[in-house]
Amino acid sequence: MAPKEWYNILPDLPEPVPPMRKPDGSVVKPEELEVLFAKEVVRQEFSQDRWIPIPEEVRNTYLEIGRPTPLIRAKRLEEYLKTPAKIYFKYEGVTPTGSHKVNTALAQAYYHSKEGTERLTTETGAGQWGSALSLATALFDIALRVYMVRISYEQKPYRRIVMETYGAEVVPSPSPYTQVGKKFLEQDPNHPGSLGIAIAEAIEDAVTHENTKYSLGSVLNHVILHQTVIGLEAKKQMEALGEYPDVVIGCVGGGSNYAGLAYPFVYDRLKGGKEVRFVAAEPKSVPSMSKGEYRYDFGDSAGLTPMLKMHTLGHDFVPPKIHAGGLRYHGVAPTLSILINHGIVEPVTYSQEEIFEAGRIFAKTEGIIPAPESDHAVKAAIEEALKAKEEGEERVILFNLSGHGLLDLKGYDDFLHGRLGSHL
Amino acid sequence: MAPKEWYNILPDLPEPVPPMRKPDGSVVKPEELEVLFAKEVVRQEFSQDRWIPIPEEVRNTYLEIGRPTPLIRAKRLEEYLKTPAKIYFKYEGVTPTGSHKVNTALAQAYYHSKEGTERLTTETGAGQWGSALSLATALFDIALRVYMVRISYEQKPYRRIVMETYGAEVVPSPSPYTQVGKKFLEQDPNHPGSLGIAIAEAIEDAVTHENTKYSLGSVLNHVILHQTVIGLEAKKQMEALGEYPDVVIGCVGGGSNYAGLAYPFVYDRLKGGKEVRFVAAEPKSVPSMSKGEYRYDFGDSAGLTPMLKMHTLGHDFVPPKIHAGGLRYHGVAPTLSILINHGIVEPVTYSQEEIFEAGRIFAKTEGIIPAPESDHAVKAAIEEALKAKEEGEERVILFNLSGHGLLDLKGYDDFLHGRLGSHL
Repeated sequence: MAPKEWYNILPDLPEPVPPMRKPDGSVVKPEELEVLFAKEVVRQEFSQDRWIPIPEEVRNTYLEIGRPTPLIRAKRLEEYLKTPAKIYFKYEGVTPTGSHKVNTALAQAYYHSKEGTERLTTETGAGQWGSALSLATALFDIALRVYMVRISYEQKPYRRIVMETYGAEVVPSPSPYTQVGKKFLEQDPNHPGSLGIAIAEAIEDAVTHENTKYSLGSVLNHVILHQTVIGLEAKKQMEALGEYPDVVIGCVGGGSNYAGLAYPFVYDRLKGGKEVRFVAAEPKSVPSMSKGEYRYDFGDSAGLTPMLKMHTLGHDFVPPKIHAGGLRYHGVAPTLSILINHGIVEPVTYSQEEIFEAGRIFAKTEGIIPAPESDHAVKAAIEEALKAKEEGEERVILFNLSGHGLLDLKGYDDFLHGRLGSHL
Repeated sequence: MAPKEWYNILPDLPEPVPPMRKPDGSVVKPEELEVLFAKEVVRQEFSQDRWIPIPEEVRNTYLEIGRPTPLIRAKRLEEYLKTPAKIYFKYEGVTPTGSHKVNTALAQAYYHSKEGTERLTTETGAGQWGSALSLATALFDIALRVYMVRISYEQKPYRRIVMETYGAEVVPSPSPYTQVGKKFLEQDPNHPGSLGIAIAEAIEDAVTHENTKYSLGSVLNHVILHQTVIGLEAKKQMEALGEYPDVVIGCVGGGSNYAGLAYPFVYDRLKGGKEVRFVAAEPKSVPSMSKGEYRYDFGDSAGLTPMLKMHTLGHDFVPPKIHAGGLRYHGVAPTLSILINHGIVEPVTYSQEEIFEAGRIFAKTEGIIPAPESDHAVKAAIEEALKAKEEGEERVILFNLSGHGLLDLKGYDDFLHGRLGSHL
């Protein structure tokens, strides 16, 4: 069941991904990215090879962290909904850090260790990505400093402790370790921080320190490439059950967990003419796929990264403080943006109230408490199952349960006790 | 790999388990326990059948929660220790509530649902057992009230939220719902509670309400019986690798996770003459196995339960507030006590400092952050591996990683930042 190659969608897209550009309009050259990223990762970012071998060392770590992850049929949920649909989910929560993020973290850490990188930097909001990279750098023996948005560092200590237990250095951002950080601390010594500032600090740190590089957890092509292990496994697992999905569902922040599950099936539709629908769920309050403009924009809020052509709410958009922290992103992966433009991926939006109710139903019927991000996928799967019931059709639904919610329980508490605030 | 029968050690013990007694010395009759427990569970408690069929419905739920759980070789830990020993661990943390507790919770909830019980009560300290039973009662559609020790209810909200998300009613104990609870609240309206009081409340609630029974998560024979699914799976998994353990290790509170792994191997030693050692780890500050007297004592601290013959520190022993909440128990399962008396199981004790350091090493090498309880098993496994190195022998070590530590991170935080207090 364990794939030996990742799937790269670049050669199969209905139109090419527009190049990354600098603010002056000039095209970013691959070598320019090598200051930050591993060389092999940069090669993958632009590769037109459809299949890219997963190094044996990475495959071994995939096994160690519990891959292939289980594909589970949600029979009790089907019974609860009285639907003729079959609902399957790919459960990424079994990994030690509880989400899919580790799939690319391990690959990136491996390439860095091979290329001799001794130290990595990254940013993290609530801490999912930081935890995954902390685990990966522990296994490949690379030092890591994580710039964690200060308000999360203070209010959500649990993922910080996870990162520190793996041996990472976690600093609240803005920090006194960078020029950018110092500037913000001068303005306000108790600055709450933001993902934009944390990215800026991590990048500055990487370019100003010896043998230090930077690692990113979503949006870019190489990240999505590594995540396709999810969909490739799922396809084999469904095949073994004699099943094929009619609809493939996931939640979208930057897009990597959804693309990871969906792209191997998108390949079947684009190249094999398979009839399969793609539904991508996002928060009503961060509607980058459904309301964002398709244009060039920065990947971060500080305007430091190259510009990407994508659906965006604007890099200065400030997402409201919903519990699904991983979906608080102004943009969408460029490849996913193209698939949306071509009507291949259908975006849907849900409120916080709706997604937590879906999560509660899922926990009661299937026994797993999903991450608030993944609750968006659960909600969309329930909607598709109810539609199948209405239309009296026995459809096969597949969704990505990208992570468990054991480190995000406050949202459920607020929901169960009516403290959620219904406007988001 | 999925066993169809549980293993009951009662007929194979070197001497029979002394009967449960009332404080006046009279023997407790099985029917007397049926006021509290499911009839089938009481039958199992006293059964002399070596193999007891796992009902198909329970086996199905075992599959749904991720059984068989993985048996993993800790290769990176071996390399780190430079030991010739092979270290295997059975990882129970993949279940939705993150520990082995659900193995008996599902069985008990199933029998209750079959016997028409509409409502269950139980007690919980930090919440591991309460979470597992909440999940099980959600799946078998039984109402549940959990009496949660008030200080945990207030200071450790996360497992409470887990239980509530599964639909259980969680009340802080002492509560105004029972006579016992009212009595303690009158003494002190902010009484912090204790496991003893919570047990008393749960039992009073069960016997004073229509169609309500009580469920227990450790110590008794039927609980251990259900946990043997761990060891039976492990045996088949090791067989498939051509391996057999030289030593079987686990941590002991009441004894159910360790007995669950060990008893199927104890059977091989007692009945098949296999040479295999058994090491059981407990906290230095709660040394019930190594320092407890072997005598009749109550199972709870309030003196409400029948008396069991076991190693005990006295039912009025107040365990210090170590982070391994699941090991804060004054007694040891009667069957395990007999095996200790006969030198078959060897107890070892460790300090908090020692076990968290073992946990940190395990997290850095194997990528999983263990529960503080399970850290005792990790520590013992490391000790055995170092002994093998010293003696230059290639031994096979098997231990039970009974749960992950994602809901117990504060202990790691205190350890990493030198706030643990070294006296425990």
